[in-house]
Amino acid sequence: MLPDHPPPPIVLTTDFGAADPCVGMMKGVIYGINPRAVVIDLTHHVPPQDLRRAAFILATSYRYFPSGAIHVAVVDPGVGTQRRALLVATPTARFLAPDNGVLSYVLPRPGETSQVSSGLHPVPPGCAAYQLTKPDYWLHPVSSTFHGRDIFAPVAAHLSLGVAPEVLGTPVADLVWLPSLQPARLGSAILGEVLYADHFGNLVTNISTEDLTGLPVLHVEIKGRSIPRLSRTFHDRGTPAGGLVAFFGSHGYLEIARPDGSAEADLGAGAGEPVRVSVG
Amino acid sequence: MLPDHPPPPIVLTTDFGAADPCVGMMKGVIYGINPRAVVIDLTHHVPPQDLRRAAFILATSYRYFPSGAIHVAVVDPGVGTQRRALLVATPTARFLAPDNGVLSYVLPRPGETSQVSSGLHPVPPGCAAYQLTKPDYWLHPVSSTFHGRDIFAPVAAHLSLGVAPEVLGTPVADLVWLPSLQPARLGSAILGEVLYADHFGNLVTNISTEDLTGLPVLHVEIKGRSIPRLSRTFHDRGTPAGGLVAFFGSHGYLEIARPDGSAEADLGAGAGEPVRVSVG
Amino acid sequence: MLPDHPPPPIVLTTDFGAADPCVGMMKGVIYGINPRAVVIDLTHHVPPQDLRRAAFILATSYRYFPSGAIHVAVVDPGVGTQRRALLVATPTARFLAPDNGVLSYVLPRPGETSQVSSGLHPVPPGCAAYQLTKPDYWLHPVSSTFHGRDIFAPVAAHLSLGVAPEVLGTPVADLVWLPSLQPARLGSAILGEVLYADHFGNLVTNISTEDLTGLPVLHVEIKGRSIPRLSRTFHDRGTPAGGLVAFFGSHGYLEIARPDGSAEADLGAGAGEPVRVSVG
Repeated sequence: MLPDHPPPPIVLTTDFGAADPCVGMMKGVIYGINPRAVVIDLTHHVPPQDLRRAAFILATSYRYFPSGAIHVAVVDPGVGTQRRALLVATPTARFLAPDNGVLSYVLPRPGETSQVSSGLHPVPPGCAAYQLTKPDYWLHPVSSTFHGRDIFAPVAAHLSLGVAPEVLGTPVADLVWLPSLQPARLGSAILGEVLYADHFGNLVTNISTEDLTGLPVLHVEIKGRSIPRLSRTFHDRGTPAGGLVAFFGSHGYLEIARPDGSAEADLGAGAGEPVRVSVG
Repeated sequence: MLPDHPPPPIVLTTDFGAADPCVGMMKGVIYGINPRAVVIDLTHHVPPQDLRRAAFILATSYRYFPSGAIHVAVVDPGVGTQRRALLVATPTARFLAPDNGVLSYVLPRPGETSQVSSGLHPVPPGCAAYQLTKPDYWLHPVSSTFHGRDIFAPVAAHLSLGVAPEVLGTPVADLVWLPSLQPARLGSAILGEVLYADHFGNLVTNISTEDLTGLPVLHVEIKGRSIPRLSRTFHDRGTPAGGLVAFFGSHGYLEIARPDGSAEADLGAGAGEPVRVSVG
Repeated sequence: MLPDHPPPPIVLTTDFGAADPCVGMMKGVIYGINPRAVVIDLTHHVPPQDLRRAAFILATSYRYFPSGAIHVAVVDPGVGTQRRALLVATPTARFLAPDNGVLSYVLPRPGETSQVSSGLHPVPPGCAAYQLTKPDYWLHPVSSTFHGRDIFAPVAAHLSLGVAPEVLGTPVADLVWLPSLQPARLGSAILGEVLYADHFGNLVTNISTEDLTGLPVLHVEIKGRSIPRLSRTFHDRGTPAGGLVAFFGSHGYLEIARPDGSAEADLGAGAGEPVRVSVG
């Protein structure tokens, strides 16, 4: 690296919100170690302690960052317990996070099937994982409630300066995984669910383009409403006023939207709502 | 430009909110193309699809950025339709935005009068407009719902690297314009309206300093309440407890505020509320 | 300073919120003066005009920023009045803020006791304070309602370029102070109060680690509920379902939390709620 080449960006994803100064302090720690750091906020509005949402956000976003980016994901209900702090290196990115499953959807699924249960599973081939065990690279005293500031931020800053992962931690062989996001298949139906409503009230589901590859869609059902086809976008000339559309969002997952309003408000639906896609 | 001179800042204005990772992904794309980019958030809390609000924010803010700044305004209800994606260069700034009127108030009004109707009007003299037509500078595959990430962000990054506008698009002669913000004049009254309530509950109107230049203000009326004069700021010693004040805000538009509270809450007034200024 | 050394970061704390473009404009002004500026948001969600909250945020955060950082704190109910605009230099940081007490908790308390009343008190030894009096370093015209943009931002940018404090203002000998945060001691009890509820619904009090140093805690009482001991973190194996825990947060102040929910919602308690700690 030339001395004046910008370092890889550090990308922050947390459930800290914007009102408390937590994120700002993490940045202060980072710039204190690497004054040339480039820090990008992915979001700090993960619902409190919602690991699955954070994992989904990371999985659908990380490929838009430069190769070598350092992702710091601090959704950490177990801070202060024995849960491990991890550094996971993949062929294209580095991830710093508590060992609680938040990296589940950015890593290749372990084993032959993607229907992996939750719990401990091996680190996937091509990836390397380390438990952060080197206090020389932490901020002291380490608080028992804010490892984002005291462990993850300083380690990210050192990584951005070129410190090697094996200097920062100790290799580990397995990780905590969340259950697969994959929807179920039952006869001629794909049975999925709403993951969340986005800022525009669009309902984002766990049904991906891959889940429907090669399957002609007959209709999409949610809360007793039926949508007769997939649209290319949320504008569909054939949609009657107040009607719903279904399309694949820019993240590659099926969304249900109301072009002239909010599907969330219209349907009164949120996370967990069943979605059924009938396929030919 | 010297190799180590910072590039012009890229300034982002969207209605994407803070919870979804959309803005973060746009920044990831930008830094992937220009690792030295300087990115500034103007706001991401434009009310969903509110073109007039976004246009007002741009118009009252862009002059505070360095000459040559690259403004990216993604309030884009027509994404995925045939609406054009634009680059507009003015003598002091560059703007990337969908062709939906969001740039209406940063450009000199076309024609002799400022009471321009909505619709297509010529590009003003001194400005140059281009339709973004060069996919070599986009991110592929281009989604049909997120041109902020796939078209506007990468084009902004290439602009910040010094790529010329004419390489990024094809000249166009006219643009979509919003109706003028200008209030009406009726005898000895200026008839305006509230544009929005700001973070402090102050009601910001469409009546500008220019609209009242040389006109002695007799009183300001809103929702049956009368304010007997213009103040210099929201502190006015003559204001009784619970009283309202009217003054020109830092954006140059008339505001109505309650010094000891929220005018929005007190009056139950928001966007569209009529405001009448009696002039001498 | 080598020409290519990054400047000290400028750290922004305001009550401007995220919807209005105020913070973005401040950054535009800063980058216009120093294109290499490093700007960090601490928070812009201080409750409107809440000086004590802003002072607490600064006091518990500033030490996490690099030495020499330039903190800009714009919570400014008196903008447009005769209140002074200040630059205060301490041995480790520079602060720009209105003279309204917002710096009270980052400075050493004046005098022998920390129970200082509000009002004017001398600048503490080791610190230097200046009233900003040099319009050459401001943005013109200076609005009467937005000194963050027109005075504090440009002065911060000039400071980050190395302009000396004495060039930017005139020395002053005293400052406005807020009343001490310190809780009262009454016999075997420490009587404090809730300062605010954080993003997770944890209730943060004004009782610091120093206040309880060497004092064995018997129990903590709030709203008729009794917590029998201090925990190390919000995870405490002995806590029954729905129970409360008390622990010192990462800022060094006593917090009351509900591990499986929100103490704020559970107790219906917020700022000002009395908290009593019985000590041995």
